[in-house]
Amino acid sequence: MNLELVTVGTELLLGLTVDTNGAEIGRACAAAGWRLVRRTAVADDASAIRDAVGDAVERTGCVITTGGLGPTRDDATKHAVAELFGRRLVEDTAVLRDLEVRARRLGRWPMAASNRSQAAVPEGATVLPNARGTAPGLWLEDRGRVVILLPGVPREMRGLLHEAVLPRLMQRVGGGTAVVRSRSVRVTGVAESSLADRVGPLEPSLAPLTLAYLPSEAGVDLRLTAWGLSPDEAGRALAAGVTRLREAVGTPVYGEDDTDLAAVVLDLLRVRGATLAVAESCTGGVIGGRLTAVPGASDVFRGGEIAYANTIKTSRLGVSAGLLMEHGAVSEPVVRAMAAGAREAFGVDAAIAVTGIAGPTGGTPEKPVGTVWLAADWRTTARVAHVRLVGDRDEVRARAAQGALNLLRLLLLTAA
Amino acid sequence: MNLELVTVGTELLLGLTVDTNGAEIGRACAAAGWRLVRRTAVADDASAIRDAVGDAVERTGCVITTGGLGPTRDDATKHAVAELFGRRLVEDTAVLRDLEVRARRLGRWPMAASNRSQAAVPEGATVLPNARGTAPGLWLEDRGRVVILLPGVPREMRGLLHEAVLPRLMQRVGGGTAVVRSRSVRVTGVAESSLADRVGPLEPSLAPLTLAYLPSEAGVDLRLTAWGLSPDEAGRALAAGVTRLREAVGTPVYGEDDTDLAAVVLDLLRVRGATLAVAESCTGGVIGGRLTAVPGASDVFRGGEIAYANTIKTSRLGVSAGLLMEHGAVSEPVVRAMAAGAREAFGVDAAIAVTGIAGPTGGTPEKPVGTVWLAADWRTTARVAHVRLVGDRDEVRARAAQGALNLLRLLLLTAA
Repeated sequence: MNLELVTVGTELLLGLTVDTNGAEIGRACAAAGWRLVRRTAVADDASAIRDAVGDAVERTGCVITTGGLGPTRDDATKHAVAELFGRRLVEDTAVLRDLEVRARRLGRWPMAASNRSQAAVPEGATVLPNARGTAPGLWLEDRGRVVILLPGVPREMRGLLHEAVLPRLMQRVGGGTAVVRSRSVRVTGVAESSLADRVGPLEPSLAPLTLAYLPSEAGVDLRLTAWGLSPDEAGRALAAGVTRLREAVGTPVYGEDDTDLAAVVLDLLRVRGATLAVAESCTGGVIGGRLTAVPGASDVFRGGEIAYANTIKTSRLGVSAGLLMEHGAVSEPVVRAMAAGAREAFGVDAAIAVTGIAGPTGGTPEKPVGTVWLAADWRTTARVAHVRLVGDRDEVRARAAQGALNLLRLLLLTAA
Repeated sequence: MNLELVTVGTELLLGLTVDTNGAEIGRACAAAGWRLVRRTAVADDASAIRDAVGDAVERTGCVITTGGLGPTRDDATKHAVAELFGRRLVEDTAVLRDLEVRARRLGRWPMAASNRSQAAVPEGATVLPNARGTAPGLWLEDRGRVVILLPGVPREMRGLLHEAVLPRLMQRVGGGTAVVRSRSVRVTGVAESSLADRVGPLEPSLAPLTLAYLPSEAGVDLRLTAWGLSPDEAGRALAAGVTRLREAVGTPVYGEDDTDLAAVVLDLLRVRGATLAVAESCTGGVIGGRLTAVPGASDVFRGGEIAYANTIKTSRLGVSAGLLMEHGAVSEPVVRAMAAGAREAFGVDAAIAVTGIAGPTGGTPEKPVGTVWLAADWRTTARVAHVRLVGDRDEVRARAAQGALNLLRLLLLTAA
């Protein structure tokens, strides 16, 4: 099956929003074996939407739209598509009831008048209830043609896509026999060029899979893609490819696909029945934020100190003022003292500490911006690392957080 | 001038790459006063490219393409556009020489045969030399219509766009007499629908500006856009529109354009010569991370406690075990005690505290997922808020962080 996507939003064309919905829907279609042949972005303008959806449905018979379903004046998708199909808008009592229940539950009662407009749906449309927001998805059929309207808020779009649209499309047209699927091996703590030296010789033998290097603040993701195989063949080829990459790269591999390094570290501690705390200076809470983003972190992670000012390093982590004076806050003795202080103060088995110069100011010839000291403590063992990180303030902080988590991971892999 | 963008790449439709070039070009056109009316993504397929570019040039007379200019078999843009305009491909000796110089410099000599194909250009095309890669940009004109071909690698695209395409387009069609410019008013702590009720009546009178509501975890951004005014008119209209929106919305406005609420709070404290600490439970470091993302935070922000476990709330912030037992960790007395404890422990003028249930588990009938208590302390004044936040774990945490920062902002606005 061929289909098209029409993304609606003036902010997309002005470049104020980067379209991530398009990629999400693209991956879902490729994995199902459906061919997304075109994606069109238009402004919040009824005639532009009508033209784009009209042309797209003419070409493929199946169109998904995102955006332009909100309660405000500039949301025009529903009206444009209703007009295209010659349908009136009628108030759907079930949608209205859901809106009212939601407004009551959130204490937004009486409901704003503008919200009521979201209960208006094109006559004959199937409503796809949206548990995450006020705009329901809509499924219109007309002489064998299908147009599916989804909200533009990524969280709402994603929920409706996976829970309502994909199962319904699968039931209607069936999955394709030739899918495009990808898997990734996540690597950190090794330069892309030296990774290429390890992986390069392997590359020809990975066929028919293709390999891409995707560098980011998290490290480098090695993405394998299977093109046009059956779902079973694709699954087997990708599993074999992942195994071969893991073997070739070794310990710098910390996970696969969407695995976050923070979750890996929590798992390594969880199986040891161990607890964790952090002591963050230049990262200022980023590591704690990443650890606590993982559901269920609480059985391992106890808490941490954001020791941004030097006086706090002393008063709350017991780093001696003399040490700070003698070596400076960005130094090996201080990062060691921070990790040890956190382990003591929080009564935990493992601790991570970071101190560094994130920039844009604060660098010196001896300690330029990007200079970071990392420490990981695991019971009686400590490990430190000195890194010079590239990038702007955000990137330095993100790379420092990843480096600190990885230091603890490597320590746990080698420790008894 | 209206124009369209056609982005070429199978990986864009498969969702393996998120299209950032589209947003970059959109911003550049808006700033120059040209209206990008449609963006179309197609696969590396000559007939799909021909159709998309043909339709786009028919509608607007001016099309930019990105991608599909590389040396490999699947790069089809140049051939497709040459065919569309009935042009032969001819080898350009200047391009060939540049390719050879580059190949020698990088030690890739003799040059791969596939690279030589990049010297073939549509007859009559103007070559836009690419200093960052092997594929030059190409500028084709045909009976007043213009098609501009750019490579897909973002760094190369950006260089050619700003150094060659924008100046040339500016010279050809002029710019600046009718610009598209946007400004945003950032709002938080008020639902989109009730915001629409406040702003809606104003909307007709904002003309010729258009208004868009952009909801996110940060709140709602009200974006005003001036279409087709002169730079001076646009500037005046936007300034007036921003003022009217600020007046209509009132204190929920925390800033304009790219302003981050964390920076606003730091500024409010800085002018008072005051210091800040945080006490985070369910946000786990997110607030500290946001505050320290702001360059120069260190003159206000001292640090904070990530008090994730209840034992840490007691041992490190002095929240009494009895209080936790009696009211539970997610309660008004506990959030008050956390903020007071942080103010005391860190010796600061202001403190923010958050405790809540981020989910997906841990909810109860009385305290469902999304239940969050916020506190802000400013010297002798304290303020608390109880909110029920929607969304998944990440969203609840992000909204809680924003809510806590906003609570302190509101307290500082009203306090002496």
